[in-house]
Amino acid sequence: MDPFSAKIQPGVPTIVNVDLGNRSYPIYIGSGLLNKPELLQRHVHGKKVLIVTNTTVAPLYLDKVVDALTSGNPNVSVESVILPDGEQYKDMDTLMKVFDKAIESRLDRRCTFVALGGGVIGDMCGFAAASFLRGVNFIQIPTTVMAQVDSSVGGKTGINHPLGKNLIGAFYQPQCVLIDTDTLDTLPERELASGFAEVIKYGLIRDTEFFEWQEKNMQALMARDPNALAYAIKRSCENKAEVVSLDEREGGVRATLNLGHTFGHAIETSVGYGQWLHGEAVAAGTVMAVDMSYRLGWIDDSIVKRVSDVLKQTKLPIVPPEMMTVDMFKSVMAVDKKVADGLLRLILLKGPLGNCVFTGDYDRKALDDTLQAFCKS
Amino acid sequence: MDPFSAKIQPGVPTIVNVDLGNRSYPIYIGSGLLNKPELLQRHVHGKKVLIVTNTTVAPLYLDKVVDALTSGNPNVSVESVILPDGEQYKDMDTLMKVFDKAIESRLDRRCTFVALGGGVIGDMCGFAAASFLRGVNFIQIPTTVMAQVDSSVGGKTGINHPLGKNLIGAFYQPQCVLIDTDTLDTLPERELASGFAEVIKYGLIRDTEFFEWQEKNMQALMARDPNALAYAIKRSCENKAEVVSLDEREGGVRATLNLGHTFGHAIETSVGYGQWLHGEAVAAGTVMAVDMSYRLGWIDDSIVKRVSDVLKQTKLPIVPPEMMTVDMFKSVMAVDKKVADGLLRLILLKGPLGNCVFTGDYDRKALDDTLQAFCKS
Repeated sequence: MDPFSAKIQPGVPTIVNVDLGNRSYPIYIGSGLLNKPELLQRHVHGKKVLIVTNTTVAPLYLDKVVDALTSGNPNVSVESVILPDGEQYKDMDTLMKVFDKAIESRLDRRCTFVALGGGVIGDMCGFAAASFLRGVNFIQIPTTVMAQVDSSVGGKTGINHPLGKNLIGAFYQPQCVLIDTDTLDTLPERELASGFAEVIKYGLIRDTEFFEWQEKNMQALMARDPNALAYAIKRSCENKAEVVSLDEREGGVRATLNLGHTFGHAIETSVGYGQWLHGEAVAAGTVMAVDMSYRLGWIDDSIVKRVSDVLKQTKLPIVPPEMMTVDMFKSVMAVDKKVADGLLRLILLKGPLGNCVFTGDYDRKALDDTLQAFCKS
Repeated sequence: MDPFSAKIQPGVPTIVNVDLGNRSYPIYIGSGLLNKPELLQRHVHGKKVLIVTNTTVAPLYLDKVVDALTSGNPNVSVESVILPDGEQYKDMDTLMKVFDKAIESRLDRRCTFVALGGGVIGDMCGFAAASFLRGVNFIQIPTTVMAQVDSSVGGKTGINHPLGKNLIGAFYQPQCVLIDTDTLDTLPERELASGFAEVIKYGLIRDTEFFEWQEKNMQALMARDPNALAYAIKRSCENKAEVVSLDEREGGVRATLNLGHTFGHAIETSVGYGQWLHGEAVAAGTVMAVDMSYRLGWIDDSIVKRVSDVLKQTKLPIVPPEMMTVDMFKSVMAVDKKVADGLLRLILLKGPLGNCVFTGDYDRKALDDTLQAFCKS
């Protein structure tokens, strides 16, 4: 496990493959990759491209991506649609703006949609690509840690419903994921930390060595050390790609990637989409899942402490917002996608660090106790 | 080709299989099938069902379907959502009502959606099933000729956009299609005829014998002769199943099922969704496609006459509405899903009866001449 194996060489991508038969695709990771038009262009079929981005990212990177798509490639025409920024716009009304633009631009089935932005943009653009003309090509260009380490890989796309996150969507794989780590230079610190919640998740559920590396290198990550970031992104993508390859449609093991997410989604939905960043809610949710695992006697207290310690280094929240009540948690968790025949299944840690289970077979009292411990009412 | 091979025996289904590997499913065709709970129940997994239907069909068949789902099966709970009836409601706002109901009813990934109605209900319920929690099971119970011979089979789902039909959707296969031909007893005559446009289509594009049978039996079909209807439905489903098995995602041959549809969609979109029934627009569109094929010298005039004659027996329109202009046709046809890199591909007849091509390689003048011949301006 040599972090320097991912040492930055501008313009030279590290490639992680997502192995899904005829839906396989590469993840390109590196610095300066948006200056390499051939990387993107080899995945664009047809003559028309629609870039889906937001008001924050467009001024920073839209021109650069248009250049990468069109440089030396005059036959391609590029349109763009710029959505408002934030989880609160990950809804059907905003999605319709993508369809409106695609239809006005006379895009046909051979077009390619490009998601340029964070997780919200990637999820919405992906769902739009899955649904426009019953499916067109798409490419992910994630510009946040959250999207680079997690949401842009694996084909989960969708939008929120007022009653719950990501309840409407599709499994739909991109043609490629292009991660230019230089785009993190402009990422606000709060967004940076948010992404680390998912990085920590991989360590906890399946990669002890990676977790230990994070314990030693979280300060470097927070300081945006390029080599540390490149390593964390690559290692996260390797974990994500492996899990997705085993279980594309979340029949089993893929659900473990949702450690802390059931609690986290309840927070995001209850406080109002966009108030807490996804990773902030996942961080608090992870602490709750770890607490519950400990109450069940499935992990020892050293793990509880190590999780808390590494999260403190990220400055992510480790408790839910004060306004959350036990009933709020229960009401949103009841519509979680992991409920099966009325039974809420959760991802919980069990055994030595790096091991988890996805199960509905747990003592309800432990869940109640955790909720009561983290809520004032 | 013995029509009596499909002679009605109440409660005994004829089965046509749609062969799509692990997405294969049966089409059950027959009289009294809604009185056979075991047919439906074997395709319901999980404990919750959501029936999607409309204000016209619900009073007629909703109770019957609820009974079929629950009879001897007390563990299953059934919810229903009743949408307004008509193509004009095949939109995102109406689709959201399905999601609202599904979420309020706490449905989870093991639930089953049941489409009970015509093509609009089937398309919307199917797209809702494809998108709810990124995909749940669904069953088609088509109650119109249109849906029984065409739209319920093959997994095309979706909704309309104000600028064009079926522009947003998914390829998503049902668990089964259950066609109880008794439901046609309550079908208005205009809807009955509308479905025959698709029946005629199968004959024209790939099944000469079937077309010849229709020429002899159209009066029996219009008179709702049960054996004639059962035969036409079975033969249509066989044709549809074969084409879909060859080309699920419309990379090629499946497009031929859209004979007349590009002209037809332009009519439906221009006059306003719901003004003309789908089959009415397809009938006029078929005459236009046949006219264009003749202008190109690809078919002889006897075919033109036979198409016109058989359609006249159905009382379906054989010209577009008077308000349609050449520009209206061109503007909607420009966003057709069969446009590729700016080129509109059409399904046209070529050669002896029963043969067609899907091509963008035709003389533009023939298209212009056809549009001008059928439009006043």
